[in-house]
Amino acid sequence: MAAPTKEIVITGIKPTGKVHVGNYIGAIKPALELARTPMGKTAQEMEHVLKSGQVQEGGRTVLFFIADYHGLILIQDAREFRELSYRIAATWLALGLDPSKVVFYRQSDVPEIFELTWILSCLTPKGLMNRAHAYKAIVERNEQAGVDPDAGVNMGLYTYPILMAADILLFQSDLVPVGKDQAQHVEIARDLAEAFNRQYGETFNLPRHLMGETTAVIPGLDGRKMSKSYGNTIPLFEPEEELSKLIARIKTDSTLPNEPKDPDNSSVFLLYKEFAEVERTRAFREKLLQGIGWGEAKRELFQVMNEFLAEPRRKYRELLADPAELDRILAEGARKARELAAPTLSKVRERIGRR
Amino acid sequence: MAAPTKEIVITGIKPTGKVHVGNYIGAIKPALELARTPMGKTAQEMEHVLKSGQVQEGGRTVLFFIADYHGLILIQDAREFRELSYRIAATWLALGLDPSKVVFYRQSDVPEIFELTWILSCLTPKGLMNRAHAYKAIVERNEQAGVDPDAGVNMGLYTYPILMAADILLFQSDLVPVGKDQAQHVEIARDLAEAFNRQYGETFNLPRHLMGETTAVIPGLDGRKMSKSYGNTIPLFEPEEELSKLIARIKTDSTLPNEPKDPDNSSVFLLYKEFAEVERTRAFREKLLQGIGWGEAKRELFQVMNEFLAEPRRKYRELLADPAELDRILAEGARKARELAAPTLSKVRERIGRR
Repeated sequence: MAAPTKEIVITGIKPTGKVHVGNYIGAIKPALELARTPMGKTAQEMEHVLKSGQVQEGGRTVLFFIADYHGLILIQDAREFRELSYRIAATWLALGLDPSKVVFYRQSDVPEIFELTWILSCLTPKGLMNRAHAYKAIVERNEQAGVDPDAGVNMGLYTYPILMAADILLFQSDLVPVGKDQAQHVEIARDLAEAFNRQYGETFNLPRHLMGETTAVIPGLDGRKMSKSYGNTIPLFEPEEELSKLIARIKTDSTLPNEPKDPDNSSVFLLYKEFAEVERTRAFREKLLQGIGWGEAKRELFQVMNEFLAEPRRKYRELLADPAELDRILAEGARKARELAAPTLSKVRERIGRR
Repeated sequence: MAAPTKEIVITGIKPTGKVHVGNYIGAIKPALELARTPMGKTAQEMEHVLKSGQVQEGGRTVLFFIADYHGLILIQDAREFRELSYRIAATWLALGLDPSKVVFYRQSDVPEIFELTWILSCLTPKGLMNRAHAYKAIVERNEQAGVDPDAGVNMGLYTYPILMAADILLFQSDLVPVGKDQAQHVEIARDLAEAFNRQYGETFNLPRHLMGETTAVIPGLDGRKMSKSYGNTIPLFEPEEELSKLIARIKTDSTLPNEPKDPDNSSVFLLYKEFAEVERTRAFREKLLQGIGWGEAKRELFQVMNEFLAEPRRKYRELLADPAELDRILAEGARKARELAAPTLSKVRERIGRR
């Protein structure tokens, strides 16, 4: 395949509760790495490039947005809604997202998205929504429970794939890094782009989903996959003492001190290698093979995690204490996002006969 | 009932083909009369009143909008889409709508509507959409035809009642003059306003629908109700000669000249009285009772209709030839509409925790 001449990558971040180590390793870390790759240009350079039409080979613009209006489907408490957005912003910024190098904005600050959502609705066959996995799963559950198939389904939930298509298509995105459960939504966005292009002529770029290569499962405290639903998570920004206590609770096998341990079947090691450099990881592996006790191993894990998390934890708290600064950063991101979006919405309006 | 201290009336106009005499008498004329009643204030006065918070007793703001993005559900041809909007604008202005006294805008010029549509979606139970008459009618038809119940249904059609709710609620409307087929949609808007107020506290005014009192059926050329689907209409802005030819085709009974005629069962008379003053109508009635021939009666009908329509017809053509002027008028209307909408969207965003 020939190298793409430009590349727009977009990632939506859904408001959720406390971010944990599994979220960081599985989603945040790879996304930040993608944004930092040498192929990248600063968002400002890219803005210029897009406007001038002189797209250079290898240019890449990375967009991150807080999908707050997506969150509204579930979160209908004002305080929670407000806080979760700030927490997401603070989390990503604390972990190293550089808002001068990417476009970082709140979905609700870009009204163009909602206009495009309506326009796309008029080209979306209802059958396409009926086949969306998330909706189908709820219908199945309702049917098994013997209640109305649409019980508890609001129209935000049902039409959400159209909103997500607008999120993606408005920026002429090429790549959408997603988890397995979201791949179908990117396919729907692609279907709608094709439907629009067919009806009105070439307008939208066709996006592709990009699935993370790591199939590695991050173990939780009990050895199962770290997940909120299992109650076995290590929240990312816990105070030092809490972190230490949580790590002490990690389940280990019954190997005694001085007996060799199997690193690849140890949650302690699997977590360690996500936070330590290669050299240090190799040394830790050696220690386990040579029979370091679990207590000491956990202290070393705490050491390495705490070293890594100390600065983000400090930054996170600092940012959360200053919502005006978060607003400023996100407003600047929204300004850039709207500038990038304007030519596409303009073209769409022209295509449908609005101007 | 106590007199309302203020009143906001909103009317959406769906893009459609050639406007005919039945549309004028059944919908346009009563809407224009409502806008002209002495209770009315100019939109500018009302804007001031709303902003200052000093709403005076009897104040009334009348909003008319071209529901072009509603039209997109069906009209997916750019040229047709563009022309139909201009035609609606020219029609209403030619018939006497005074854009300085009302707020006259295009739906697609008010992005606040689409943001509110999404927000309301998250509070709309899917079951409510399943019960909407227009959607149910299509499902029934599909089921009878033995095809998929959702065949030919796009998501614009399915979710349209939410868009209409946003159209209405964004302006804190009190009254929505509608035909019988749209009454349920106003009920849905009211339901959504109540749902939002319940969840987030008092925010939206509860709108009511206002059904026209005229149950009078306007007869078409063949004596049946004038309707595009019967192909029996008299288009409103036909050239004089065409109008005359169409009137000559109106079906009459077989009464001979000099035999008395029954005005109340005559399409000629029923049309006449819609265009003539009371005194002249009385005189025409007398002539029919005294046995004026149908040919002469039709010439008199042409006379009175043509007198009434000559100036609107000229104005209509003039406006259609000057789309820039139409754009200017509608842009000014959109500016006023957005000013009226801003405080409500602001309040909604605050309520949900967006600011």
